[in-house]
Amino acid sequence: MLPLEIPEVVIDRLPIYARALALLEKQGREVVNSQELGERLSVTPAQIRKDLSYFGRFGKQGRGYNVSRLLQELHQILGLTREWPMVLVGVGQLGRAIAAYDGFVPQGFRIVEAFDADPKIIGAKLNGLEVKPVDALPEVLRRHRAALAIVAVPAAVAQEVIDMLVESGVRAILNYAPIAPHVPPHVRIKDIDPVLALQSMTFYIKSAADAAK
Amino acid sequence: MLPLEIPEVVIDRLPIYARALALLEKQGREVVNSQELGERLSVTPAQIRKDLSYFGRFGKQGRGYNVSRLLQELHQILGLTREWPMVLVGVGQLGRAIAAYDGFVPQGFRIVEAFDADPKIIGAKLNGLEVKPVDALPEVLRRHRAALAIVAVPAAVAQEVIDMLVESGVRAILNYAPIAPHVPPHVRIKDIDPVLALQSMTFYIKSAADAAK
Repeated sequence: MLPLEIPEVVIDRLPIYARALALLEKQGREVVNSQELGERLSVTPAQIRKDLSYFGRFGKQGRGYNVSRLLQELHQILGLTREWPMVLVGVGQLGRAIAAYDGFVPQGFRIVEAFDADPKIIGAKLNGLEVKPVDALPEVLRRHRAALAIVAVPAAVAQEVIDMLVESGVRAILNYAPIAPHVPPHVRIKDIDPVLALQSMTFYIKSAADAAK
Repeated sequence: MLPLEIPEVVIDRLPIYARALALLEKQGREVVNSQELGERLSVTPAQIRKDLSYFGRFGKQGRGYNVSRLLQELHQILGLTREWPMVLVGVGQLGRAIAAYDGFVPQGFRIVEAFDADPKIIGAKLNGLEVKPVDALPEVLRRHRAALAIVAVPAAVAQEVIDMLVESGVRAILNYAPIAPHVPPHVRIKDIDPVLALQSMTFYIKSAADAAK
């Protein structure tokens, strides 16, 4: 089956299922049904069953899913059975907070190179890495072959940095700059955008206030 | 029409449309059709038309949308014609990076109070705000009535902080802690989770590599 046939929203939900299953596994649970999984994640059981059905048959009707087996399958599907080296571009306040984030390494994501354009930052140490000049990025990536990059540069230079990463062979970008970036179809990009998240929540507060009028 | 009838994915796309329209307006554009808007955002024109149709009739068949008018309507729908005060809980490295983020204020989101549990941080200044003890949160929120909160505390205490915010009347939470938080149905929550974003992108890299085998 071609991955392109699977809606992106389905792929986006798989890591959420995997996280819930990892928690259940840690709690010693062997089996879970879509009902309980759905309640934990505010997703309907039907949605979970439909999402998983894209990837084959998991679990038996009325018997639920084997927690460890489904978790392992999801890791396999998502490519999470290996470590993913990442490069970080932008070592300002945000970049340093990202580098300090302790959620990446346990999940197999490791920042292996860091870049900045500021001469005051270049050469500094970040988690044991020496920050390199952003101009050196193409050459460093030729040696490293990191497929993932994190962009934490100012908005004004973000597209330029993204273009450079794409030309250097990066395949997926986590973008923190508040822009609507362009990438070619073979490159994935996800924007971490707190404002967009806030702007969709205000809708609900406003609507509740309107309804109460 | 009840807001609950509108799928959340539709609401989530409206701020993205608004951002693209604001850019077009800045460029002096008066009219845009769903085709061009779709190309800019990698959304199908049919999707855009369907999403907007939940909120009434915008634009004329074959003539496109009036950029300024549609932008204004979207701001109205999303509740973005006013300023939204926010409280920030957690003033560690991540919290400071969030407070330094210059994308909030231009969009009408302003951090008006900051809290931490660390005696070394309490009393410090953050963008002109004095960081208050997290214990003072319920009392401060009784006076402030901020409907929005940002949570940037360690995972271990995040649910506790979220419960405190909910009890203090907060209606929407932007959560940076790597947990799967629980909130009652009347409270909105969005998780900023870089790992989940990465984990869904690795799927595509892996699939492309598998296909090339």
